[in-house]
Amino acid sequence: MANDKKKMVEAITAQEVDFAQWYTDICTKAELVEYSSVKGFIILRPYGQAIWENIQRLMDARFKATGHENVAMPLLIPESLLKKEGELVNGFAPEVAWVTAGGSEALEERMAIRPTSETMFCDHWSRVLHSYRELPMKYNQWCSVVRWEKTTRPFLRSREFWWQEGHTIHETAEEAQAETAQQLDCYADFFEKELNIPVIKGRKTDKEKFAGAEATYTIEAMMKDGKALQSGTSHYFGDKFSRAYDVTFTGRDNTLQYPFQTSWGTSTRMIGAIIMAHGDDDGLILPPAIAPIQVVIVPVAAHKPGVLEKCRELAENLGKVARVKLDDSDKQPGWKFAQWEMKGVPLRIEVGPRDLEKNQCVLVRRDTREKQFVSLDALAELIPQQLAALGQDLYDRALANREARTWSAATMDEVKDIVSKNTGFVKTMWCGELACEEAMKEQAGLSSRCMPYEQEHIADVCPVCGKPASKMVVWGIAY
Amino acid sequence: MANDKKKMVEAITAQEVDFAQWYTDICTKAELVEYSSVKGFIILRPYGQAIWENIQRLMDARFKATGHENVAMPLLIPESLLKKEGELVNGFAPEVAWVTAGGSEALEERMAIRPTSETMFCDHWSRVLHSYRELPMKYNQWCSVVRWEKTTRPFLRSREFWWQEGHTIHETAEEAQAETAQQLDCYADFFEKELNIPVIKGRKTDKEKFAGAEATYTIEAMMKDGKALQSGTSHYFGDKFSRAYDVTFTGRDNTLQYPFQTSWGTSTRMIGAIIMAHGDDDGLILPPAIAPIQVVIVPVAAHKPGVLEKCRELAENLGKVARVKLDDSDKQPGWKFAQWEMKGVPLRIEVGPRDLEKNQCVLVRRDTREKQFVSLDALAELIPQQLAALGQDLYDRALANREARTWSAATMDEVKDIVSKNTGFVKTMWCGELACEEAMKEQAGLSSRCMPYEQEHIADVCPVCGKPASKMVVWGIAY
Repeated sequence: MANDKKKMVEAITAQEVDFAQWYTDICTKAELVEYSSVKGFIILRPYGQAIWENIQRLMDARFKATGHENVAMPLLIPESLLKKEGELVNGFAPEVAWVTAGGSEALEERMAIRPTSETMFCDHWSRVLHSYRELPMKYNQWCSVVRWEKTTRPFLRSREFWWQEGHTIHETAEEAQAETAQQLDCYADFFEKELNIPVIKGRKTDKEKFAGAEATYTIEAMMKDGKALQSGTSHYFGDKFSRAYDVTFTGRDNTLQYPFQTSWGTSTRMIGAIIMAHGDDDGLILPPAIAPIQVVIVPVAAHKPGVLEKCRELAENLGKVARVKLDDSDKQPGWKFAQWEMKGVPLRIEVGPRDLEKNQCVLVRRDTREKQFVSLDALAELIPQQLAALGQDLYDRALANREARTWSAATMDEVKDIVSKNTGFVKTMWCGELACEEAMKEQAGLSSRCMPYEQEHIADVCPVCGKPASKMVVWGIAY
Repeated sequence: MANDKKKMVEAITAQEVDFAQWYTDICTKAELVEYSSVKGFIILRPYGQAIWENIQRLMDARFKATGHENVAMPLLIPESLLKKEGELVNGFAPEVAWVTAGGSEALEERMAIRPTSETMFCDHWSRVLHSYRELPMKYNQWCSVVRWEKTTRPFLRSREFWWQEGHTIHETAEEAQAETAQQLDCYADFFEKELNIPVIKGRKTDKEKFAGAEATYTIEAMMKDGKALQSGTSHYFGDKFSRAYDVTFTGRDNTLQYPFQTSWGTSTRMIGAIIMAHGDDDGLILPPAIAPIQVVIVPVAAHKPGVLEKCRELAENLGKVARVKLDDSDKQPGWKFAQWEMKGVPLRIEVGPRDLEKNQCVLVRRDTREKQFVSLDALAELIPQQLAALGQDLYDRALANREARTWSAATMDEVKDIVSKNTGFVKTMWCGELACEEAMKEQAGLSSRCMPYEQEHIADVCPVCGKPASKMVVWGIAY
């Protein structure tokens, strides 16, 4: 069957041959995106958008369950407003798209298409916040942002991408810090439970933190090729932006105070993570929680009496326990099998005339290709179990890959030896100096992914400078 | 109570005094929007955004039930691409925002922030469409668009607004025309069932149709002040855009053909319609289907034993049948009543110590202010009924207003007499000439709203030129 299939569908590049090409092949062949004719901008096609909407729905429910409210802020930011906080504008200015005319008239002041919206939230709060009684304000928005990247890849880095950006202000630093931590935990839990991708939670070094943030926390995932994907970040700003944008409130003691602020974001990059954490040479493998189609039913010998009717009945009944699609198009079954494997549908049900005689069907898992004959009466109970098992197995396999590709090193010689043979995570101690972080990049090609919450004692000294070091850093090659 | 309340909340302008000011008062006092510091751009605050999300959820389900799929198209459109279809660019060029630089570099070609996305959909289809087997393609996107309006008002006309834009292509003209009609029906049904606003369905005159469309259909609603709000439009393009953008497919007869196209849109303008169709001098009155809070529970003498506990129990139980909020803040009950009336919550439940003794509560309708004592045991059954009754009454009242403010006229003297005394809809015959349409504007201040599906024979001739006329037009003053 595997050989037949390969003849019938356009082949994609094998992971072993060229992982980067394999990735872009999947993006287009699974019909997630199309490259638009606007350079660096992608189109989310129906299947890609459906994955994104499932992600949005599940994340949005989590945000709302912890008291966050959605808002919509303006798309454009006047230059003077953007420039009020120096670090932020320095961080984003090189990649901002500028609007200079409205209709036939030049604007008096040019405006940036939002690269991120801290500015707009602060400007809004500077007018609407009055009293500590109104705090916290915990907002989120779903939108697209624009960053004028030089080189782009679908989902990973494009000039426009879709994301959520949470922005909150709090009465005290402690509350804001707790929010920052809570939202990082929310992201980590979402990745592990819904996307079946293990992540490392940690703090970014100053070099890698968000422009203007006091501290940036991150979840870092490992892709199948051993490279790292920064998958979600949560920032603590202290009162720096509040002061820059004059956001104040009257405190409990009747004095004017500055609130403490956070922001946190995840984006369509998550779809890139899904592709590269789980996919194989036949295409996508989607986590059941966000798969637009969880079960595809393919009739075999659909012209034979009763086959299509039974498939329709199954589709309707199983629609109560899963997202089910019946593929009753006039393509050959083999073509359909390959097509839905490319699109990563977790489970496939095949129903032919002989199956009907035995009141059974063939149930096939996308990941293992394990086939089992199942009584039609048992399907409604079995499918949720199989979806859950598949999700757990995806997670376990991704974790096993990460563990197999993670090394500890006490010296630079060890680090260099590891990177000469492998791609993955390298854990070392770090003295905290920027110079040593930069040396790790120059000498071993590794950037700091984070200082993990879960620290280990690998050595007593920094492998670069040999000075005492108490922090462990995870290094890697980042997308 | 009514007098007490007025003392406690910031007053809004009465409708009778200044309807326009009443409208903007509601927009800000009900915390739907805030004026941003970007001229002509608004911020959707949590309450406004929550209304919009309810509208989105209900409409999106309707679109998907008829086979539409969501996609996401690029925000920016290169000028050369926008200019391929002459009528469209002429229609939108005066109000397009132009991006001329990315980062520190000037763009080789400037790009428009999308004012509408026909261009991008056609460009996409020109690459991905191959065969009649792939038709129809029925797409929709939820996004914001930018149009550089001179004068702006929240929801009605702002430089950025949020909307859905449906775009479809079909094998035949008949199918595309059927889609255009179906989506107008979808909008009309949504307005009547979910927003409780009656609408007139009809076709736009050539003067009022969408730039580049062959035919534009519209739903027109009447606001409380007698003015018209164009509330949703559905366009049929024939194959004009397909030809301009070279969208082709191989037909059943193996020849290369151009598909037939539609687009259709509704926007946050719907929130303006809700405000002006139903609101009163105490604030918003929200249609139950889209109200973020359908029932607010206000404890009276909340410090008395058992009151808060009972309110919490009620909130939890009633949460199974409606969207319920318990207001247990430390404000006075009278202030809360006024606040939630301003925000248009359909039903209020008051629970005090004496009510508890009798196992009852007070149930108050926002629209009629009708109060009834209701057994706590009957609430879960009564609330859905009361919400439905309130929605029906909103509809009936809006319809009664429209009927009371609609006149027929056979001559220009009759038209002038009507508009000298009233604001509303005037129905007349029309010969079909642009000159007569323009004369109606000059002489009576009225623009054509539509040629309704439901035609009447009012006279034999056009009231302007006296020539034979067989079409009836509804005229009005439009927002």
